[in-house]
Amino acid sequence: METYRHIVQYYETDMMGITHHANYIRWMEEARIDYLSQIGFSYAEMEKMGILVPVVSVGGRYRRPTTFSDDIAIDVAVTEFTGVRLKLSYLMKNKDGKTVFEGTSEHAFLNREGRPARMKTEYPELYAALNDQLVKEE
Amino acid sequence: METYRHIVQYYETDMMGITHHANYIRWMEEARIDYLSQIGFSYAEMEKMGILVPVVSVGGRYRRPTTFSDDIAIDVAVTEFTGVRLKLSYLMKNKDGKTVFEGTSEHAFLNREGRPARMKTEYPELYAALNDQLVKEE
Amino acid sequence: METYRHIVQYYETDMMGITHHANYIRWMEEARIDYLSQIGFSYAEMEKMGILVPVVSVGGRYRRPTTFSDDIAIDVAVTEFTGVRLKLSYLMKNKDGKTVFEGTSEHAFLNREGRPARMKTEYPELYAALNDQLVKEE
Amino acid sequence: METYRHIVQYYETDMMGITHHANYIRWMEEARIDYLSQIGFSYAEMEKMGILVPVVSVGGRYRRPTTFSDDIAIDVAVTEFTGVRLKLSYLMKNKDGKTVFEGTSEHAFLNREGRPARMKTEYPELYAALNDQLVKEE
Repeated sequence: METYRHIVQYYETDMMGITHHANYIRWMEEARIDYLSQIGFSYAEMEKMGILVPVVSVGGRYRRPTTFSDDIAIDVAVTEFTGVRLKLSYLMKNKDGKTVFEGTSEHAFLNREGRPARMKTEYPELYAALNDQLVKEE
Repeated sequence: METYRHIVQYYETDMMGITHHANYIRWMEEARIDYLSQIGFSYAEMEKMGILVPVVSVGGRYRRPTTFSDDIAIDVAVTEFTGVRLKLSYLMKNKDGKTVFEGTSEHAFLNREGRPARMKTEYPELYAALNDQLVKEE
Repeated sequence: METYRHIVQYYETDMMGITHHANYIRWMEEARIDYLSQIGFSYAEMEKMGILVPVVSVGGRYRRPTTFSDDIAIDVAVTEFTGVRLKLSYLMKNKDGKTVFEGTSEHAFLNREGRPARMKTEYPELYAALNDQLVKEE
Repeated sequence: METYRHIVQYYETDMMGITHHANYIRWMEEARIDYLSQIGFSYAEMEKMGILVPVVSVGGRYRRPTTFSDDIAIDVAVTEFTGVRLKLSYLMKNKDGKTVFEGTSEHAFLNREGRPARMKTEYPELYAALNDQLVKEE
């Protein structure tokens, strides 16, 4: 899996001179979308398939500040996948390889009717791909 | 017409210690939505009526910096309304009554089919309300 | 303690038609700043006193979606305060009184030198005010 | 000069299903910082040199909507440079080569004292580099 990279933008800093903390939640989304795309599921395709993947929870711990023009490497991993819920973890590092942020997110899968999707029967390929990641990472 | 107020949030500042310039474009939207609501047209209602009001152009001049916790007063005026296009101007002042930003925006009206709406015949009430504002301000 | 209110802005929605999830982290900041101000400590004053209050961690659970023009009531409570670390919880409700989001944040206190502040001796008034809130809420 | 690219993020869309218009102002900043870096002046270096480049005005015209995952190519050009003020223009195109946005921005140069910098004498290298771009583009 290729590591996702985000360069901190000037508009992402705040008057403390560092990256505003809410941006890391956005970067988790960027990295997540890239991750799903790498295992074969672009959001665009998923929406055509009728799947929505709303965020159920997020969490994060700020280890070191980052600031404008920093190059952040973000690795994503599947930590739980039951076919109904998906849990992901995120590890963000700076150029020196130091951890700057550790995060988690939890997602549901909704089908075209807005109801929880039974992934295994409704979307067997995405189910298999996510399950595969879970197994690989264990 | 009541002046719209926006309190500058911490997350709207940047590492220069002042409000990041892109936020003023967002505040123009906040003030515009409030203005339309004051003349009787909430965005929610307009969407029910099938009207979309996309932004065609924006412009702005930064007169004085603002920063976290500043209380910004925003006045909106109709500067042009042809029934097809709407032009608005925005005047933002700080607590001392000094101008901090002057802006403009231009909007089209689209109907349910995504085509330019003939306001006068399709939405006569909104047409009258906007025309009324234009006349009053002249 | 007065409940903080945030009206969802158009620019806070995303293409799912609901409020983008990262905005709740920003609203937690809005409510936190308002809360500290209500117990007598505006951020502006705190910065003059030389205190910085960086975010150490955040977490949140999305209970119900919200969208443009929704009026969100946000209550903040001190859940832990050791004089070194501060933990806050956030409860966000919509107009119907339904919970839309539950969050937490954890903060450190840094003094003028960028070192952890010993609140009790360095900033006894803020220490007392926060301790007071903790006791009241227990 | 290399064209800057921005991939539209999910969090940059709004409930109309398209990119929220305020984001283009941010992309102008991304492209501007990249442009200055390409002619030898990173913001980081400029700040070390004591130069600030505040935004004096912005303007933009929305030609075609863009949305999540679109790949936007942004070209920047110097349209005016007097040694005191800098004017830039921005042309944004989608993958099909269609113009999606045309913008302008105007900037002042402030020195360490927060006063307008006389670029030619205070920062001759940056003066020469910008002047060079102006000439090339004419």
